[in-house]
Amino acid sequence: MSGSADPVEITRTLIRCPSVTPEEGGALSYLEGLLGAAGFRVHRVTLTGRDTPDVENLYARFGTRGPNLCFAGHTDVVPPGDPAHWRFPPFEAAIHGGLLYGRGAVDMKSGVAAFTAAALDLAAEHGDKLPGSISLLITGDEEGPAINGTEKLLRWLADRDERLDHCVLGEPSSRAALGDMVKIGRRGSLSGTLTVHGKQGHVGYPHLAENPIPGMARLITALTAEPLDRGSAHFQASNLEVVSVDVGNPAFNVIPAEAKARFNIRFNDLWMPDTLKAEVERRLKAAAGNEVRFSLAFEERSSDSFLTAPGDFVDLVVAAISDATGRTPELSTTGGTSDARFIKDYCPVVEFGLVGTSMHAVDEATPVEEIHALTRVYKDIATRYFDAFGR
Amino acid sequence: MSGSADPVEITRTLIRCPSVTPEEGGALSYLEGLLGAAGFRVHRVTLTGRDTPDVENLYARFGTRGPNLCFAGHTDVVPPGDPAHWRFPPFEAAIHGGLLYGRGAVDMKSGVAAFTAAALDLAAEHGDKLPGSISLLITGDEEGPAINGTEKLLRWLADRDERLDHCVLGEPSSRAALGDMVKIGRRGSLSGTLTVHGKQGHVGYPHLAENPIPGMARLITALTAEPLDRGSAHFQASNLEVVSVDVGNPAFNVIPAEAKARFNIRFNDLWMPDTLKAEVERRLKAAAGNEVRFSLAFEERSSDSFLTAPGDFVDLVVAAISDATGRTPELSTTGGTSDARFIKDYCPVVEFGLVGTSMHAVDEATPVEEIHALTRVYKDIATRYFDAFGR
Ligand SMILES: [Zn+2]
Ligand SMILES: [Zn+2]
Repeated sequence: MSGSADPVEITRTLIRCPSVTPEEGGALSYLEGLLGAAGFRVHRVTLTGRDTPDVENLYARFGTRGPNLCFAGHTDVVPPGDPAHWRFPPFEAAIHGGLLYGRGAVDMKSGVAAFTAAALDLAAEHGDKLPGSISLLITGDEEGPAINGTEKLLRWLADRDERLDHCVLGEPSSRAALGDMVKIGRRGSLSGTLTVHGKQGHVGYPHLAENPIPGMARLITALTAEPLDRGSAHFQASNLEVVSVDVGNPAFNVIPAEAKARFNIRFNDLWMPDTLKAEVERRLKAAAGNEVRFSLAFEERSSDSFLTAPGDFVDLVVAAISDATGRTPELSTTGGTSDARFIKDYCPVVEFGLVGTSMHAVDEATPVEEIHALTRVYKDIATRYFDAFGR
Repeated sequence: MSGSADPVEITRTLIRCPSVTPEEGGALSYLEGLLGAAGFRVHRVTLTGRDTPDVENLYARFGTRGPNLCFAGHTDVVPPGDPAHWRFPPFEAAIHGGLLYGRGAVDMKSGVAAFTAAALDLAAEHGDKLPGSISLLITGDEEGPAINGTEKLLRWLADRDERLDHCVLGEPSSRAALGDMVKIGRRGSLSGTLTVHGKQGHVGYPHLAENPIPGMARLITALTAEPLDRGSAHFQASNLEVVSVDVGNPAFNVIPAEAKARFNIRFNDLWMPDTLKAEVERRLKAAAGNEVRFSLAFEERSSDSFLTAPGDFVDLVVAAISDATGRTPELSTTGGTSDARFIKDYCPVVEFGLVGTSMHAVDEATPVEEIHALTRVYKDIATRYFDAFGR
C-alpha cells in the first residue's frame, strides 16, 4: 500500500463526480477540501473567453521554497456514451475482479488520485522541512477545446511569479504494462485545408468546365507519397495524414466547382510550424504546376514539438519507475498531443501514467493494484527529486 | 409565315400553362383539344410507378397508313426560380424586341408548338390523301426523373402494335444559329460509386490505422489520367468525370475508415455499358494492386450510345434545314442525354430544334422569327419524308 492517503478511494470519489468536460462535477471541490485540510494553498481559477465554455481549474502548492515539483493532470472526462453499454455504471466506480471500472478510471482520475495521495503523504511526512515545494496543476479542460485550461492557467501562474521547476504529467503513458514507457517529448501538430478550384459545368460539356478532382488527387499524392523525414534521435518520422476530402456534389451530371481536403501533420524536432508550412506549399506548387489552381489555409492553433532531453531529471523518473514496477521504461516521443505542449514552455516535463488501452472506451477500467503502484512511483519521483535538487 | 396554324400563338398558350415538371398545367389538354379538332386520334396516357410522381403524357396520330413519321418532345419545364429575377414574368409569354420570353420558350414549348403547327398544316392540306401517318409523342416527364415518360410511353405504344418508322425529336439542338447543328446520335451514360476501404484511427497512431485517402487519390488518377478512347467516326472521345469525392470527417485528428468517389462516363459507340464497366474495373485493379482495398457499384440506369447513321433520312432532314435556314448543319453526337436514348430502340431518330443557350436560365427567350423558321423546317422534313418514303 502507498501510505496514509488511499489513492483508490480518492479515485472512486472522483469517478462519482460526473465531470464530463467542461463540467466541474464536484471533482475539483473535493480535491480542494482534501488538499486545503492538509495545508496546501489552493487556488480555484475559473478561466473564460474565446467563445468556449468557462472552465474551472485548480492549482495547489505545499511549501514556499524552490524547487517546485509540479504534478499536472485533469479531472474532466469524455462522455460515457450510452450507460447501458457499460458492464458497470460509468459513474459508480465499481470494483470487480481487481479492476476499478468507470469513466476516468484510466484517463485520468486514477492519475490525479495517485499524485494527490503521493503529495499528501509527502506533505504529512516532511511538513515544513520539505526541501522545496510540491504543487498540483489540475484542469477541467483537457478533453474539451483546451483553451480555458492548462495553457491559460500557466500564464495565470506566471503573472503571479509562481514558478514551476519540473513537471510530471500524469496522463496514461504506459503501453502494455505499467512502467514500460515514459514520454519525454511529443511531436508537434499542424493542420490545414487545401482547396482546389475548378469551374462548374455539365458532364456532357466538359470542355466548358474544369474539374478540380483530378488535380486534387494529384496534390494529395504529392503530399503523401514521400515521407517528410526519416525521424531524429529521439523521434519517429514526421507524418502527414489527409483526414478528409469533400466535394458534396449530390448530382452525377454536374462537374463541381471546387474540392477541399483537410490534413494534419504530426512532426518531430526537425521542423518548426513555419518550415513545415513552407515544405507543404513547396510540394503543392511543384505538383500543381500551371494546371492546378489551389489555395491553402493553416489552422491557427499549431503546436511545436518538444523534447525533455535525457539527463538528471529523466534519469530519476526512470529510476523511480524501475524500482516500483521492475520495468525499464522506453523513452518515447510517440502518440498524440497532451497538455505537455503548454507546460514545456515553462519547465521540463515528462509524462508518466497508467496503461491507456481502455481510455475513452466503454468499460474503461484499471487494476486497483496499479493505482497503488503508480502512487509509489510518484512518491518515489518526488523523494528522489528533493534528494537531487532540494535545497 | 408558316401556314394557317400560328406556332407563336401555340407557344404562348403553352407557356401560360405552368407545367413545371411533373405538373401537366393544362398544356397537354390544350394540345389534345387542338389536335382532336383537326382529326388526330389523341391518347392521353397517365404513367405511374417506381416511387416517382404520376405523369401525364400524350400520343396523337393523323392517318392510318405507314410510314409513321413521329415528332417527339415534352411540355414539362424546369422551375423558373424567383420570378422577380425575370425581366418578364416566366409564365406570361411576353414578346419584346422580337423575342418571346418565358419558361419553355426554348426548351421546348416552341419546339412542340412548331411541330404541332406543321402537323396541323399537313393534315389540313393532305387530309386522308396523306401517304403515311404523322404522329406526335409528347411527355410531361423529360425534366423530371424520366421514368414515367417517353420510355414507358413507347412501350405502351408497342404493346398496342403502334409502330413508329422515323422520329424527329424537337429538343434545342442548334448551337449558335438555328440550323447550325443537328444531333444524329448521343453518347451513352454510365454512373458509378467507388469506395476505398481503410481502418479508422487516431492521427497520432497511424500504424494502427489505414488511411483510405491516398489510395483514393491513386485510383482517381488511374481513372482520369488516360482518355478512354480517341473518338470514333461520328463521335468525340468518351469522357469520365469524377463528380464528387466525400469522406465527411469533421475532425482533424481522426483517420477516416473510408472514402467515396462518384463518377459519370459519357461514352461513344466504341463501348457498351458492360465493356466500359470491365475497363473501369481493370484500371482500378491495376492501380490498387494489393495495397488499396476498394469496392465499386454502378448505378442501375445506364444508357447506351446511339447513332442514326448518315443516309436517306438524315439527308432529307439536312436538306430541309438548309433550305429553310441557309445553313448546312453539322452532324453532331455531342452533349448530354435526351429522350432519344429511349426512342432509338424503336426507330431511327434525329434531334433538331432551336438554339439552346438560354434554356433552363432566367429570361429564357427565343426570337419569334425562329419559331416560324423552325415550323418551316419541320413541315419541309415531313413533306420530303412522305415524298421519299410515302406509299
Ligand atoms: Zn487525459
Ligand atoms: Zn428539353
